[in-house]
Amino acid sequence: MEKNSAFDTRVARGTSDGNGDRFFFTFAGPGQEMSLEAGSFLSPVTLAYETWGTLNAEKNNAVLVCHALSGDAHAAASPDSQESGPGWWDFMVGPGKAIDTDRYFVICSNIIGSCAGSTGPSSIKPGTDRPYAGAFPMITITDMVRAQRHLIDHLGIERLLSVIGGSVGGMQVLEWCARYPDRMVSAIPLASTTRHSAQAIAFNEVARQAIMADANWNLGNYYSKDTPDMGLAVARMIGHITYLSDEAMKVKFGRKLQNPTILSLEPGHDFQVESYLRHQGRKFVERFDANSFLYITRAADYFDLARDYGAGSLEKAVSRFKARLLIVSFTTDWLYPTYQSRELVRAMKQNLMDVSFSEITAKWGHDAFLLPGTGLDRLVAGFLAGVYHGR
Amino acid sequence: MEKNSAFDTRVARGTSDGNGDRFFFTFAGPGQEMSLEAGSFLSPVTLAYETWGTLNAEKNNAVLVCHALSGDAHAAASPDSQESGPGWWDFMVGPGKAIDTDRYFVICSNIIGSCAGSTGPSSIKPGTDRPYAGAFPMITITDMVRAQRHLIDHLGIERLLSVIGGSVGGMQVLEWCARYPDRMVSAIPLASTTRHSAQAIAFNEVARQAIMADANWNLGNYYSKDTPDMGLAVARMIGHITYLSDEAMKVKFGRKLQNPTILSLEPGHDFQVESYLRHQGRKFVERFDANSFLYITRAADYFDLARDYGAGSLEKAVSRFKARLLIVSFTTDWLYPTYQSRELVRAMKQNLMDVSFSEITAKWGHDAFLLPGTGLDRLVAGFLAGVYHGR
Repeated sequence: MEKNSAFDTRVARGTSDGNGDRFFFTFAGPGQEMSLEAGSFLSPVTLAYETWGTLNAEKNNAVLVCHALSGDAHAAASPDSQESGPGWWDFMVGPGKAIDTDRYFVICSNIIGSCAGSTGPSSIKPGTDRPYAGAFPMITITDMVRAQRHLIDHLGIERLLSVIGGSVGGMQVLEWCARYPDRMVSAIPLASTTRHSAQAIAFNEVARQAIMADANWNLGNYYSKDTPDMGLAVARMIGHITYLSDEAMKVKFGRKLQNPTILSLEPGHDFQVESYLRHQGRKFVERFDANSFLYITRAADYFDLARDYGAGSLEKAVSRFKARLLIVSFTTDWLYPTYQSRELVRAMKQNLMDVSFSEITAKWGHDAFLLPGTGLDRLVAGFLAGVYHGR
Repeated sequence: MEKNSAFDTRVARGTSDGNGDRFFFTFAGPGQEMSLEAGSFLSPVTLAYETWGTLNAEKNNAVLVCHALSGDAHAAASPDSQESGPGWWDFMVGPGKAIDTDRYFVICSNIIGSCAGSTGPSSIKPGTDRPYAGAFPMITITDMVRAQRHLIDHLGIERLLSVIGGSVGGMQVLEWCARYPDRMVSAIPLASTTRHSAQAIAFNEVARQAIMADANWNLGNYYSKDTPDMGLAVARMIGHITYLSDEAMKVKFGRKLQNPTILSLEPGHDFQVESYLRHQGRKFVERFDANSFLYITRAADYFDLARDYGAGSLEKAVSRFKARLLIVSFTTDWLYPTYQSRELVRAMKQNLMDVSFSEITAKWGHDAFLLPGTGLDRLVAGFLAGVYHGR
């Protein structure tokens, strides 16, 4: 484990997000800048994180949860805090649940570049009284994972029992497998990919363009002014379509009109799917920063396991892996379709590695990993228990 | 045929679009307003149209071509005009081609609501010196087709040999089949649907939101000011992703970077697919009106053959059809997937109707109907010749 001048602060209720107990771990202070993959530096680096359960004496029961594009450290309601609101993965993380906090010590940190407590474009730039904004350095999935490793070092954990996450969280899981193969026993990438298709890049780019088209964007310098809410809302709506399947939208909305008797261009006479998307867009701008959206989607677009670790060969890249893998895809996920998970499975099998793969039948599209009722919890519970007991 | 005080003007080169010879047909003058499906009225109504070939003495060789969302009357280069630029369907329409202008009299008119010569939101509102803008009435696919029928009346054609079109043009074809079954012998809807899925509505809605989020949109009143180009460009980019398949994007762009050595958020270091989309967005705003985009996408979203003609039953709706149909879908079209064309085929078969169906294997997605090399031309040529010769 690297040595680093780091400090850790417990912040009780009353933090900016109101989610109850949360820790802040800060490293890479003056003179110890964190070097970034794109060549620049970041200092200091703060990670907001939460933990659940207790690290055992052997320190072999730690599970790191990696969140997706717009997530945060609050994966689950903290049982020790009356104040904490619902977590984004409550059906998976908690006492007696798949990621059983009675048994495992669970950690989730906000990724760097984000805006829920960790260092990102909306953080104050050292030596100034203003946020980084567009001066925030380019970050990658590698950088996010390297920051997480500093946290794991700080927590005194030599080897994680598992690293688990969906979507962009799954990319972090795969990056862990390639970069720190000796620091983990197992890994569970869900609804993820080893690299974005051109179509996925295209959707992200149009979402970014929507933000940059907003008159308030101002090259990212909007923190003391009106924020680019309209652009960010459109960006979120674009994303949201890609998270849901055609079938899920049909089941949820079909062609139901808000007011079936009137043909009109006026809002209020819309299809229900339109009202839903607008609502999603509006809700999102209350909690997310447009610059973070730009940086994180870009990091996801650049992620390419085969390029970074195998000179273009996925088989070569995964030859570095030492973890036992459970790979999960969902039938109606058209953002990261099953064929992409199968490519990873194939590459691991060519290396004669220990890999389990499950394609879960679920109608909810990419978002399925965030929703109960698919059997994902039982699958993960069984796999984790097996790994924990060395089966 | 209805009587109508109408007039027709031939306009030689020098028209605003620079596409060479084009006609303008105007009807619904003062006191003869065209009533619209949503309850309001439009007067006068002008259709910009072009024709190719010669109407024969029996007047039984006329083929009406219906264009898609952003198309215009210029389906093919006019052989009688040196000035005319390429048409949007040159590989299909011309001497010796599938829609053979040596044999058929081919008509294509710009849809109402559009901005390429026909009456739309950018047309001057009568009694004022300003464009309709947001005061343009809500229009539907039905209204577009009723206007086309006025043109067909005007041209003295009792019965069209065929009505053909792709995408939103295909919706017009189906509307013709249901509304004017006695005015046509055959119909060829391509890459189309009898109604939008929730997902298709969602994409259109996000594109509209992108326009309305543009600070220049100004509730549609932008004609004397800066136009909402950024929003319209984003809208076009969203559309463009849905027109191409995942596979087509992979073949065309893959993950190729403009400059592979630099990781950056700056433009110029983008993935090629991003530059392509931006280029498409920029090109589009030079030729298309944002309000027309809002009106026409809305019309497409509302289109629902089963609701309008069958009280919700597609089988009942198509029981009105009398035309011979050739229905064509494309394997990688995920905007209007093949299952939607099959629903139409099934409904017609339940009515024991004459319907041919072909799913063409093509990697280009929804846009495939606009591109040569898929065999679509041979398919249409054979079907049209068969219909023409009463086989």
